[in-house]
Amino acid sequence: MNHKHLVVILLTTLTSGICLAQHNQTAEVKDFKPSATTQQDKQYPQVNSEGRVRVSISAPQALKVQLDIGAVKYDLVKDDKGIWTGESNSQDEGFHYYQLNIDGASVPDPGSLYFYGAGRWGSGIEIPAKDQDFYALKNVPHGQLRESQYFSKTTNSVRHIYIYTPPGYDNNNSKRYPVLYLQHGMGENETGWGNQGHANLIMDNLIAEGKATPFIIVMENSSVNLPHRDRPNAANPAQGGPGQAAPHDVPAGNANSPRPEAGGSPMGGFNFAAQFERILIDDLIPYIESNFRVIADQPHRAMAGLSMGGMQTRLITLANVDKFSQIGIFSGGSISIDDVNKAPDFKEKVKLVFTSFGSRELENRRPGGPFGGDPKVNSDALSEAGINSHFYISPLTAHEWQSWRRSLHEFALLLFKN
Amino acid sequence: MNHKHLVVILLTTLTSGICLAQHNQTAEVKDFKPSATTQQDKQYPQVNSEGRVRVSISAPQALKVQLDIGAVKYDLVKDDKGIWTGESNSQDEGFHYYQLNIDGASVPDPGSLYFYGAGRWGSGIEIPAKDQDFYALKNVPHGQLRESQYFSKTTNSVRHIYIYTPPGYDNNNSKRYPVLYLQHGMGENETGWGNQGHANLIMDNLIAEGKATPFIIVMENSSVNLPHRDRPNAANPAQGGPGQAAPHDVPAGNANSPRPEAGGSPMGGFNFAAQFERILIDDLIPYIESNFRVIADQPHRAMAGLSMGGMQTRLITLANVDKFSQIGIFSGGSISIDDVNKAPDFKEKVKLVFTSFGSRELENRRPGGPFGGDPKVNSDALSEAGINSHFYISPLTAHEWQSWRRSLHEFALLLFKN
Repeated sequence: MNHKHLVVILLTTLTSGICLAQHNQTAEVKDFKPSATTQQDKQYPQVNSEGRVRVSISAPQALKVQLDIGAVKYDLVKDDKGIWTGESNSQDEGFHYYQLNIDGASVPDPGSLYFYGAGRWGSGIEIPAKDQDFYALKNVPHGQLRESQYFSKTTNSVRHIYIYTPPGYDNNNSKRYPVLYLQHGMGENETGWGNQGHANLIMDNLIAEGKATPFIIVMENSSVNLPHRDRPNAANPAQGGPGQAAPHDVPAGNANSPRPEAGGSPMGGFNFAAQFERILIDDLIPYIESNFRVIADQPHRAMAGLSMGGMQTRLITLANVDKFSQIGIFSGGSISIDDVNKAPDFKEKVKLVFTSFGSRELENRRPGGPFGGDPKVNSDALSEAGINSHFYISPLTAHEWQSWRRSLHEFALLLFKN
Repeated sequence: MNHKHLVVILLTTLTSGICLAQHNQTAEVKDFKPSATTQQDKQYPQVNSEGRVRVSISAPQALKVQLDIGAVKYDLVKDDKGIWTGESNSQDEGFHYYQLNIDGASVPDPGSLYFYGAGRWGSGIEIPAKDQDFYALKNVPHGQLRESQYFSKTTNSVRHIYIYTPPGYDNNNSKRYPVLYLQHGMGENETGWGNQGHANLIMDNLIAEGKATPFIIVMENSSVNLPHRDRPNAANPAQGGPGQAAPHDVPAGNANSPRPEAGGSPMGGFNFAAQFERILIDDLIPYIESNFRVIADQPHRAMAGLSMGGMQTRLITLANVDKFSQIGIFSGGSISIDDVNKAPDFKEKVKLVFTSFGSRELENRRPGGPFGGDPKVNSDALSEAGINSHFYISPLTAHEWQSWRRSLHEFALLLFKN
């Protein structure tokens, strides 16, 4: 079984979990208010305390308008002014992609902020979470999320990156920091961890509380088999061609599980990891180590990622034990004791293995699934072998950003402390 | 006549110029291709060498679909698969906001990148320009566009800012830099100069060619009478209320001239400058000077802005000659000799006054218009009085980003060289 098949199985397994997040409640709590991802000066989209999403749009001549979220399409109802309004069932706490459907056209909601996921820029909605304080914007010292470009010999192009530097980075010119290379999922890009993930706010808050060792985070685009636009909002010509996925073919309901066939075949064999491995090892790490005050050695270098990014992390770190000492795999499989035994010096050199899933992903996991067995069993086997191995389950979330925000938070508590 | 009235007159004057940008050609050049602002892996929107915009969207059940750009709505035509396609007339070179209209619903084009303007996040399209090389992404040393937050006592809130640091900023810890405070227009925010304006690429390219003195650029949100969301894509609750403008009331055709009544009354009296002046002088400048390696004195501090930001620049610099030595006003009025005579020490302390407009703005300028008279006459009068005054006209552009990209480019050639 090659990796492409494994991925399809994993995504299918995970996607099926999303339906469990739908609660078919009939009574509705009337406390709808604009979401954190509603545009300034807009009233919709809104959310209520049950996690229902309410959208509203003026479309006087439309025949049918739907809200498309969490793999379900909800019909909106038109009032006498031509304004269509309606609600979804309850959604999991955290962030979800969605779209509107107007007489067959799938479009972003003009009231929402936009995020890159499912291979496109589109609407997102934030459902308030009981634990949202850990990624809230607070009056604490803030780091910086830096957008920059560097030249990659591997791709022969200027590539677009984000770098998080912790608070105080600019104020002490002699201090050097460890680095985490942090990857997004399939159909997402280098903007995901900052926009949807709030990686910078998670770190600012942890550092303010003295709970995390300050480190630099580097975010690149690892969907390298896709046509690569180096700057999302920039002056590069689009590279779209006849083989691309048509935007109207994308069901938003699958947005939380990345679109397997979007824009080519990113999972073809091992290429999806192999090409990014070359970019990372040959181009990105040397660029970062020449341009930022990092501690440029294996003990102070970590890699983590979500979903596809977790799978890339697994393959790249297993093949480069001399380069990475700390490994985080969020909803992207796990490292087995067989993997460890095949990777020379793993037990001596790897100081942290962190594996996580959303609880709804595990509920629907098929026994004997992909990636070398049950992730909890794998994680425990590493612990028994004397490896610093941690397993985290995000409560009541699926293959979605709330699982990954929590995973980063838990991972950061452990990183670079050994 | 108070400033609110002046603004309405100015915007009306400027908006009328946009129509001249429409050429009613009938022959059509068939070289359409995706725009620089088309999403990766999408085929539409497209532009051709005449500057026409072609959009396409699947909407099988729709009765009417339109492209809304440059104050004109163009009907699209449906094919037998339910895909609607159509083109606009020729648009000016550079960047334009637009939207689609589907059976009366005004929505973003799902194929475009999104930009904040006209008081909302929405679609933008890039028309290739003969001079686009100056803001192209090139393999040169790149600076960083840094997103951060700081606490403002004036607003009692954590505010969101972007800071451009020039290439090499991190590599020489003893070098200090001059600073330009650079403001967006009405209905825009702190993301505009980076996303639409390509301020970072303009500076990277100028510095690589040795044509500009490297300086830091600070971009804040000066629409401070609007409900302020401190982070555009963040975890803040939306502040929208019943008094806000409904999203469906915004004609995209006026997008290039900001929406005067969006989300409150940002132009009420002098408040639109006065409150931002306090934020800038009391909070932002001290924050920047404590956290970045800047030369913290009047000779190395500049302010510039476009449209409303230019008007704010004029008022704030005239009132703070002791703080700013270099002034740039892009499509936002001009400084008259009367202004200079009323501002103590202006002639001695101000080292550069730069005034610019798009040529189409001046074509439609009404004699005796706002801001103390004809901007060219004003600029020349300053020169005659011995002030280093420059006047720039962007060829064949209106009140739009191509005028402002060019203005920044011309201004940067002059900045901090005296």
